[in-house]
Amino acid sequence: MADNGTARATTAVRVLDLLRASGTLSRVELAERSELTPATITNAVRRLIDAGLVREVGRDPQQGRGQPRRLLELVASAWYAVGIQIDRTTTTIVVLDFAGTRVASAGLRGSGATGPEQTVHALAEHLGALLRRADVPRSRVLGVGLVTHGPQDRERGMLLTAQPGPEWMEYPLTGTLEGLIGLPVLLENDATAAAFGECWAGGLPTDTFGLVYMGSGIGGGVVVEGEVYRGRASNAVEIGHVALNGGEAPCVCGNRGCAQAEAGPEAVVAKVLADPDLAERLGVRGAPDGTLADFERIARAWRAGDPEATGLLERSARWIGQAAVALVNLFDLDTVVLAGPAFVISGQLYREHVAAELERSALSRVLRRPSVLVSSNVDIAAATGGALHVLRTLPMSSPGRGPWAPARAAAEAWPIPNTEGAT
Amino acid sequence: MADNGTARATTAVRVLDLLRASGTLSRVELAERSELTPATITNAVRRLIDAGLVREVGRDPQQGRGQPRRLLELVASAWYAVGIQIDRTTTTIVVLDFAGTRVASAGLRGSGATGPEQTVHALAEHLGALLRRADVPRSRVLGVGLVTHGPQDRERGMLLTAQPGPEWMEYPLTGTLEGLIGLPVLLENDATAAAFGECWAGGLPTDTFGLVYMGSGIGGGVVVEGEVYRGRASNAVEIGHVALNGGEAPCVCGNRGCAQAEAGPEAVVAKVLADPDLAERLGVRGAPDGTLADFERIARAWRAGDPEATGLLERSARWIGQAAVALVNLFDLDTVVLAGPAFVISGQLYREHVAAELERSALSRVLRRPSVLVSSNVDIAAATGGALHVLRTLPMSSPGRGPWAPARAAAEAWPIPNTEGAT
Repeated sequence: MADNGTARATTAVRVLDLLRASGTLSRVELAERSELTPATITNAVRRLIDAGLVREVGRDPQQGRGQPRRLLELVASAWYAVGIQIDRTTTTIVVLDFAGTRVASAGLRGSGATGPEQTVHALAEHLGALLRRADVPRSRVLGVGLVTHGPQDRERGMLLTAQPGPEWMEYPLTGTLEGLIGLPVLLENDATAAAFGECWAGGLPTDTFGLVYMGSGIGGGVVVEGEVYRGRASNAVEIGHVALNGGEAPCVCGNRGCAQAEAGPEAVVAKVLADPDLAERLGVRGAPDGTLADFERIARAWRAGDPEATGLLERSARWIGQAAVALVNLFDLDTVVLAGPAFVISGQLYREHVAAELERSALSRVLRRPSVLVSSNVDIAAATGGALHVLRTLPMSSPGRGPWAPARAAAEAWPIPNTEGAT
Repeated sequence: MADNGTARATTAVRVLDLLRASGTLSRVELAERSELTPATITNAVRRLIDAGLVREVGRDPQQGRGQPRRLLELVASAWYAVGIQIDRTTTTIVVLDFAGTRVASAGLRGSGATGPEQTVHALAEHLGALLRRADVPRSRVLGVGLVTHGPQDRERGMLLTAQPGPEWMEYPLTGTLEGLIGLPVLLENDATAAAFGECWAGGLPTDTFGLVYMGSGIGGGVVVEGEVYRGRASNAVEIGHVALNGGEAPCVCGNRGCAQAEAGPEAVVAKVLADPDLAERLGVRGAPDGTLADFERIARAWRAGDPEATGLLERSARWIGQAAVALVNLFDLDTVVLAGPAFVISGQLYREHVAAELERSALSRVLRRPSVLVSSNVDIAAATGGALHVLRTLPMSSPGRGPWAPARAAAEAWPIPNTEGAT
C-alpha cells in the first residue's frame, strides 16, 4: 500500500541520512538517533544491505559488556549524484558518491555571455567529460541537481526571470538537459542548495541556521532542524531584496535600497569603476561576465591593506549585516553562515562585520549570542547541495507523487520497491 | 511501540483536523484528502468513534450509484479548549468546543497596569466564571493556550522580555496558572496563534500565508501548507522589528526605524498626543494601558473623514506595507492576512495600503498578484488560535516526548492510548 511504502521510504531516508552524516553507526545508535524502534531499524537495515546500499564494517570497540555492536556504513560506490551550479560569472560541477564524498569537480566560466541553449549544451558536454575523467559510470548516476538563482518554477524546471537575459525566462532548462544527458534533472535555488549542502556536508555545530549566499547576486536560505524552509513555491529567502534602512540605490527588482543593489559584488565593483584611478590600481576591468573576478581583485587589495578597497568592502559588509539582522529577527535564528564564491577571499571581513551588526541589533542578542560562520565549502556549497539534494530525494520519491516527472522514472528503477504490500 | 503509536496519533490528528475544517466528510473523502489508504482511515475512524470523538450523521445525498456513503462529524461536546490572550491593553478569553466552534468569550482589560502574579490570579478567576456561565465542565477542558507577545521560552512557560514591566521577565506564567486552575497550559506567541487560528478557523482561500498582527505592538506569523513556521525556538516572525528604509524612530529593542516604532499603535497615538489640539479633538487621552482605545478613537476619526487622522493612519499603513514586502520576499508568500485588535476599525485602510505596497514592491508581483485580507476574527484571532492549538496538540502529544510536561498528563488521560503494541 502507498501509505506503508511511504513510511518505509521515509525510514530508509532517515537511516541513509544518519549514516551519511556520521560515517559509521551501529543499529542501536541508529534507533536512538532516529527515534525509531530497534525492530524498524533492523528491518530497514536488512533491506538496505540486500539492496547493496549499506554494509557492515566491523564492530564497535568502545562498547562494554556483551557482544560488540556491528557498525554500518554506506556503500560509497553504490550510486553517484551530480550538482551543477550556473551563475552569470561561474559554473561549478561536483560529483558526489553515495556517501556524500566529492569524487570530482570542475569550475568553468559562467552563463552571462551565452544564451540558455548554448549553456545547456556546454553543461552536457562538460558533465560527460568529467564523469569519464572520474571513472563514474553514467548508469550509476542518480541524477543532476541544477542550481541557479531564482525565482524558479521547480516543477516545470524553468527560470521565472529574465536574468541574465530575456531568453532565459521560461526556457525549458531541466527538460533540455535531461534530453541531452539521459538523466533526471532537479532544479534548485542556489542559496537553498548552499544551505542544504552546508547542513549535510558542512560539519556545522547546529542544524538550524540562516545562510547568506553571495555570488553575482545575493540570496538567502534557512534550515530548521535539518529541513530547508521553502515557502509557497521554493522561492524563499530573497534576502538580496530586503530594503535597507538608508539604502538608495535602484535595484533590478524595481525597488530602491535593496541589499543586493547596495552591497552586492556588482555594486562594489561599480563603485570602483566609477573612479578610474582606483579601478586601474586594483586591476578592476568591468567585463560583463567578470563581476566575481573583479570582486576578487578588490578583496585581494583589502587583504594587502588597501584602504579604499577596505572601505568599500566594510561598507558592503555592514549592509549585509543589516540584511542578516532581518533574517534572524524574522526566522528566529542565532546562527548565520556565509557561503558563495564572493566570500572565498573576503569571508573573514564579512564574518566580523555581520557578527558586529547582529550583536548590535538582532532582537535575540540578549538571549543568545549570535554566531556567524564562513562556510567550509564556501565556493562549492551550492553545487554540493544540489548533488546532496539528488542523493536524498531522487531515490525515494514515491512514484505517482511529488513534483518531478523524472524523479518517478528514477524511483521506479530504484532497488527498494516502495509500492509493495503491507507487512 | 512508540513508533507505531506516533503514526497512529498522527493519523488521528489528520482525521480530526479534516473533520474540524470541513464539518462533515465521508470515509472516502477522508482517504482522498489525507492521502492515506481507505483501510487506515477505516481503522482510525473506528477508534475515534469508540472513543466518542467522532460520530456518523447520515448519508451523503450527492452520491451516484451504490450504497450512499455515511458522513462523519466531530462530537462537539466531547472536549473543550480555552484560549487566553493577554496584552498590555486587552485580555481576551475564548472557549471552543471539540469541533472548533466558539461557545463562550470574554474581553477584559489588559495586563499593563498589574504585575504577572495579579494578572494570573485574575485570569484564573475570570476563566472559572466563564466556564460556569457557559456550562462547560472543567473536567472536559483539555487545557489552556496562553497567548502573549514574545520572545518566550515555551518549554518553561515564561516570557524572555521585561515587557510590559521587569517583573514579567522569567515569571513562571504557565506553571502558576496551571497550579491555580488544575489544567495544562501551553504558552504561545500572539502572532503565531493568530496565524494558526486564521488557518484552522478563518475560512481562508489558501493554507500558505503571512500574517501581520497588530495589538499594542506588531508581530508576524507564517503558515506554509497548514503548518506554522516556528524557527529555532518559536520566536519567529518578529516583523515589528524589521528596520524600514527611511525609518528613524528609536525602538524598545534598542534599534532605530523598526516597523513597530514607526507604525505601531503606540507611535500613532504618540504623534496625536504631540499635538494637544488634535488630541483633544480626537479624544485621545494617553493613559498608559489605553493605547488600543486611543488608537480606536483615531481610527473612528479616520472613518468620519478627519484629514489628520487619515494622514497618520495612511503613513502607518504604508510602513506596515514595507514590512509586509520584507515578509513576502523572505518567506515566499503571496497572501498576507491582517489580524489583531488594532485592525478592528482600520482594517480596510491598512488592507488597501499594504496591498498597494506589495503590488509596487514585492519581488513576486510579476508572477502572482499579491493578495491582502483582513482576518475574519480580527480581534479574537490570537485567542482562538491558542485554543485551537490546544485542541490539535494536547490530546495527541506522545507521552515522554514533546516540550510540555503537562501535555503528558493530558495525553495519558486521553481516550486513545498511543503506547499500545503494534498491530
